[in-house]
Amino acid sequence: MIKLSIRSALTVLLTLFPFTVSVFTQVSVGDTFTIRSSVLDEDRTYDVFVPDSYAWAKDRSYPVLYVLDGESQFLHTAVSAGFLMRNTEIPEMIVVGIRSTVRVRDYTQSDWPEVWIGGGGAKNFKKFLSSEMIPKIESTYRTDGFRVLSGHSAAGQFVLYCLTEEPALFKAYNALAPSLDWDDNLPQRTLKASFENTAALNSFLYVARSDDFGKPLQDYETLVATLRTKSPNGFRWFERPFPGETHSGMALLAQIDALRSLYAGYHFHNDEVPKGFKNAEEHFSKISEKVGWTLPVPESVINTFGYEALSRDKTDEAIKFFRRNVRENQYSANAWDSLADGLEKKGDLKEAAASARKAATLAREFDLPNREYFERHAKELEDKVKE
Amino acid sequence: MIKLSIRSALTVLLTLFPFTVSVFTQVSVGDTFTIRSSVLDEDRTYDVFVPDSYAWAKDRSYPVLYVLDGESQFLHTAVSAGFLMRNTEIPEMIVVGIRSTVRVRDYTQSDWPEVWIGGGGAKNFKKFLSSEMIPKIESTYRTDGFRVLSGHSAAGQFVLYCLTEEPALFKAYNALAPSLDWDDNLPQRTLKASFENTAALNSFLYVARSDDFGKPLQDYETLVATLRTKSPNGFRWFERPFPGETHSGMALLAQIDALRSLYAGYHFHNDEVPKGFKNAEEHFSKISEKVGWTLPVPESVINTFGYEALSRDKTDEAIKFFRRNVRENQYSANAWDSLADGLEKKGDLKEAAASARKAATLAREFDLPNREYFERHAKELEDKVKE
Repeated sequence: MIKLSIRSALTVLLTLFPFTVSVFTQVSVGDTFTIRSSVLDEDRTYDVFVPDSYAWAKDRSYPVLYVLDGESQFLHTAVSAGFLMRNTEIPEMIVVGIRSTVRVRDYTQSDWPEVWIGGGGAKNFKKFLSSEMIPKIESTYRTDGFRVLSGHSAAGQFVLYCLTEEPALFKAYNALAPSLDWDDNLPQRTLKASFENTAALNSFLYVARSDDFGKPLQDYETLVATLRTKSPNGFRWFERPFPGETHSGMALLAQIDALRSLYAGYHFHNDEVPKGFKNAEEHFSKISEKVGWTLPVPESVINTFGYEALSRDKTDEAIKFFRRNVRENQYSANAWDSLADGLEKKGDLKEAAASARKAATLAREFDLPNREYFERHAKELEDKVKE
Repeated sequence: MIKLSIRSALTVLLTLFPFTVSVFTQVSVGDTFTIRSSVLDEDRTYDVFVPDSYAWAKDRSYPVLYVLDGESQFLHTAVSAGFLMRNTEIPEMIVVGIRSTVRVRDYTQSDWPEVWIGGGGAKNFKKFLSSEMIPKIESTYRTDGFRVLSGHSAAGQFVLYCLTEEPALFKAYNALAPSLDWDDNLPQRTLKASFENTAALNSFLYVARSDDFGKPLQDYETLVATLRTKSPNGFRWFERPFPGETHSGMALLAQIDALRSLYAGYHFHNDEVPKGFKNAEEHFSKISEKVGWTLPVPESVINTFGYEALSRDKTDEAIKFFRRNVRENQYSANAWDSLADGLEKKGDLKEAAASARKAATLAREFDLPNREYFERHAKELEDKVKE
């Protein structure tokens, strides 16, 4: 099975000439929406990326990564995250990019008129997130309650503020090259004070810096020292310097690194398969404990164990894996098709054909790119049953 | 001026209900097309990303990066490249992803039936590129003749073959985790023999590996040794090990690294502005010489010099920069708007208003995201003229 990585959406363009319709496809990463915020008294635009499986895995719910400054940070974050998901380095997740309007207003926790008129809107912006944006996403999409917040530069300052003020709003925080100088280093002074008064905190923070020097570098090092010496019990954090990157250029690699750091140890290498399935279960229970969220053994890993057993002629063992996969992923055409492979090898052609037909039906229903393969396989097995 | 990084395309969805039309926007990275190849006797699908400026910079032509296995490699390559362009780490370029059909057939230079039946199609696939795909792109888009070829894994093997067999077809080659074992290491044996018979070669090769060990690692090291000891005069190459990356996962970071390596030294840091414009011209003439292609001082850099002069009250000097920019970028709304700023400061309100109006007209014509800003600025200056 080949999984196409591009979700092509059919775009129907009505030309200016009546009765002439030209059809072509676009490479689409997500959809754009607008929400009316009564908290902010303005419209806000946001972009949503959903993982490849979202359209068909009707029984699956997903974590959500919220990315601030969506106009510049959404596209690379969604595409990099999608790449990491396809490579099973991180769990599948939804990515929401919130485009900015008056960013300094929204991201600063105090007014600092010496530098900028109209700051101090962070509390209000957080209220917009918690009472409008997040409820909108969680009532529209199948979400599992695990939320990540990512911000770069001034938005990174808001990320730290949010971690300080309402840490439970998100389970993990990415602060990429956060601005730390606002109002005499208020963001990190607040963080330090908050940490000193917090005994335990089940959360995660990723911080990274670019080619800083002088005061910004010193501020960053102070932040890292706070994390090193004041972190509450259970608080997990990771910091990475990117000394070769510019302030704006660092976001590309740092976002990838942030996601990999949050889920460090998630990827299950195929060369661990010979150690057995118990080892795989332990692998995912260990990372679940670390992240503080149940991360089940992915469908693809269970499938790998099935085919590995099949290749060793352990057909019954293989079928057990394949049956577990269709039980846990009842809408997965690939899981049903794999079960058909196992049953065929066992000689149970009738159930194999039914299983492959189920795969073909799902593939057609959800318009999967490889539906022709599933149809061919079902037909082949049905012909064999007739013989 | 805020540059939106997302080219939103209006998608008109005709619902199944007559007379009901629902309208929303998609985050689009590019468009998908099909070409009938008589060389390969099949249809081939390809995706095209164009830089932000493509729609309006009618006097600009662009390099083209061709990416093999487009179904998995196009999206992250186009989005990462777009990010690097916006950060002026690399010149603006078009990215074309060629989706694969029978990839082992197309990417192997010999038949090797012990391993796979039907190999050896590389010569034919190269002919498809040179006689069908490239001419199609170069007759459809404004291209400048600088072509880059990128391939991962088996496609990386084709990249090396192409460099060996017809090096002039592309100016630069990215071979990401190339498969080197085909037919008793034929790809690198051919490369070595070719290099030994080539006195000079004005080209560039980037190679990278993942967490290889054993034979694949040894093959890679042999390749690097060939590059180190046999490279023809003028041949530029760069190699990077990614020991922490899997074979498929490495493509994300390696593609970014490949583009940065090809254009290493291109980015002009703003803290170099005080050294003067001659220094900037030398900067870009040096990188042009290295890459073997004229890379002009970008519009944004010239603009920075203009505003820097303006901030030092060197108004005439600033206007010289702004005038140069509108001369070299006559369709750039931003360049005309900046010239208006310079002229306004000089007190030449009438020409300033005309210049800002030109910006607003271009912004409307090309439907730029910040057209309202340009319109407002033009109106303001026109009102001042009337006073």
